[in-house]
Amino acid sequence: MTNPVDTAQLEKLRSEIDALDDKLAGLISERLTLVRRAAALKSELKSAAYSQSREAFLQQHGAALEDKYELPTDLMADLLKRIVRESYRTSGGKSFACVKSTERPLVIVGGQGGMGRLFLQYFKASGYNALSLDKDDWDRAPEILGRAMTVIISVPIDLTEEIIKKTAAFLPEDCLLCDFTSVKAPALNTMLEAWKGPVLGLHPMFGPDIRSMVKQVIVACPGRDEGRGQFMLEQFRQWGAKVCECSAVEHDKAMSIIQALRHFTTYCYGIFMAGIHPDLKQILDLSSPIYRLELEMVGRLFAQDPHLYCDIIMSSQQNIELISDYAKSLQQELEHISRCDKKTFVKHFLQAREYFGDYAGMFLRESGALLAKVQDER
Amino acid sequence: MTNPVDTAQLEKLRSEIDALDDKLAGLISERLTLVRRAAALKSELKSAAYSQSREAFLQQHGAALEDKYELPTDLMADLLKRIVRESYRTSGGKSFACVKSTERPLVIVGGQGGMGRLFLQYFKASGYNALSLDKDDWDRAPEILGRAMTVIISVPIDLTEEIIKKTAAFLPEDCLLCDFTSVKAPALNTMLEAWKGPVLGLHPMFGPDIRSMVKQVIVACPGRDEGRGQFMLEQFRQWGAKVCECSAVEHDKAMSIIQALRHFTTYCYGIFMAGIHPDLKQILDLSSPIYRLELEMVGRLFAQDPHLYCDIIMSSQQNIELISDYAKSLQQELEHISRCDKKTFVKHFLQAREYFGDYAGMFLRESGALLAKVQDER
Repeated sequence: MTNPVDTAQLEKLRSEIDALDDKLAGLISERLTLVRRAAALKSELKSAAYSQSREAFLQQHGAALEDKYELPTDLMADLLKRIVRESYRTSGGKSFACVKSTERPLVIVGGQGGMGRLFLQYFKASGYNALSLDKDDWDRAPEILGRAMTVIISVPIDLTEEIIKKTAAFLPEDCLLCDFTSVKAPALNTMLEAWKGPVLGLHPMFGPDIRSMVKQVIVACPGRDEGRGQFMLEQFRQWGAKVCECSAVEHDKAMSIIQALRHFTTYCYGIFMAGIHPDLKQILDLSSPIYRLELEMVGRLFAQDPHLYCDIIMSSQQNIELISDYAKSLQQELEHISRCDKKTFVKHFLQAREYFGDYAGMFLRESGALLAKVQDER
Repeated sequence: MTNPVDTAQLEKLRSEIDALDDKLAGLISERLTLVRRAAALKSELKSAAYSQSREAFLQQHGAALEDKYELPTDLMADLLKRIVRESYRTSGGKSFACVKSTERPLVIVGGQGGMGRLFLQYFKASGYNALSLDKDDWDRAPEILGRAMTVIISVPIDLTEEIIKKTAAFLPEDCLLCDFTSVKAPALNTMLEAWKGPVLGLHPMFGPDIRSMVKQVIVACPGRDEGRGQFMLEQFRQWGAKVCECSAVEHDKAMSIIQALRHFTTYCYGIFMAGIHPDLKQILDLSSPIYRLELEMVGRLFAQDPHLYCDIIMSSQQNIELISDYAKSLQQELEHISRCDKKTFVKHFLQAREYFGDYAGMFLRESGALLAKVQDER
């Protein structure tokens, strides 16, 4: 049936496509060179690594090029997003403008942990005299902490209180004291009690495995003498991070939902799956992209440190109360479903739709674009 | 502070980058033209829209180009994936090879529903005499169904049994009867009882909003006279879909987990959020990409049809039993957590890690790549 002429034609077309891909790669390489030069200039100019207006322009330009060349909607914009991400990574870790130059040390207590190492690297790349004080360094504490301009406590949550108190004893009186603990109200209170100087609570909303600080969220909770902490927030912005300021109480309330409850539900789903142990390969074979993605979000938890999740979930009584309320609500829903009470199901569904409001549709669109990307990977 | 010469230099570099992006768009436009010509040839050659070996080659070629031009790992491969997806979309909906050409009709009962319309369009684009029989067309049933070569029942789950029986009365004796119901064992049994000819159960694992059939999963459950259904599965493969064959019982067991339990947990999370109604904007501002993604997966449910999810969750007693067991398991975990019993938490965590095995790490890597893409969008 197959016509040899046509098959040869197909092969010829494919060779032309491959040659074109080679040209594409060449152009992208040129683009990265230009971007590296721009990054070096930006660092000299003390201008932030990430520019929202430049990124917005690139997206508009992508859309304009889609029009000009009659390309499918979003194609050029998506390609530029992917290339721009690489630009941050390539330009990241090199050098950043320094918001507050001083010779006095910026010390990370717990600087050998994952987060400590990440931030040390960023502070050093920005020209700070950034030092680590880890568990074996306490005999040198007077020397390391005695002249510190800023100290950040980055230690496991159950050690935070003890280490804050221990650290405060060595600080010069104008030193800014910060911490990275994920529950902010108790840590901030401990700092304010143990230290009479400037205080700032911080919570980086990411793990040490990020590829770049660009667009990452860092929460800042004011403690004392806010002006003294501003340089730190400005420095984070220089790295491309998004600083979100709110009170420690608001932060902790949101984290009970965002972290504790969500991790609990993911944990329970995984534990239950392990108990009934269905054949995972078959489950994946039968899964559409969205189910695969949901299963990935569950399974990925168990590749990580159990103690980390244990600490997050059990970090406050508030978390446990929220989780108990959730379990009660789930039990109520189960009752409707056991009775096949479709009316109540639909009623509750529509109440939730009202709560999510415009976000429901936005989430559907955003996740739709993302699921298309999951498909690309298969 | 800012040096005007350097600022001008930065602007100049940015113009060069923009000019280069214009060239990139031009090349991509040329590439799409070549791909359209290849798609037309493939259709003539009766070769499948999607070629796994060609896609694998493009990924290798991408990696080779990354080496050649010293590009960052995965950049070229990712860009090609995105462009290739567009090629399917652009080439899709045009024309496909027809696996079994016959003038006799292929009828979709429920052809005006979302899935019915999607498949009608694909069958028509492949040269089939594809017809719809919808709820207002039953007076023409003898005419539409009387000469049918194949009939697919694509109606809401609670109508499936009735419509199968109604349809069977009109079919010529060699007609292949299929259905798209999401619970396979009862539907397949009804078909086997109501119809003495060839029978095949099908379950497309996607909704009508997909952009292309490429890489989508369709489950096939053998009914009677398997040979007669092979053309259908081959046709799905021509469209680029992945056909997964398994028994109706296995399918239903897997779907209780993949669909019913997962939707139930998502539903309960959304209902609970609506009940405590935290400020969604603040939650999103404070969310890292993974929390944002998880919240999107919850919120997106509520932009969809409540009846669809109600029907999926309540479609079998098996589902309700599984969900009850899940609720019990969650209650047990809650007890450990309320007691701050870290030891039990870690023990269960490690048991689940063992169950997920190599998948846990794979999920972490795959979702990591995906989360980087979520960041691109922000």
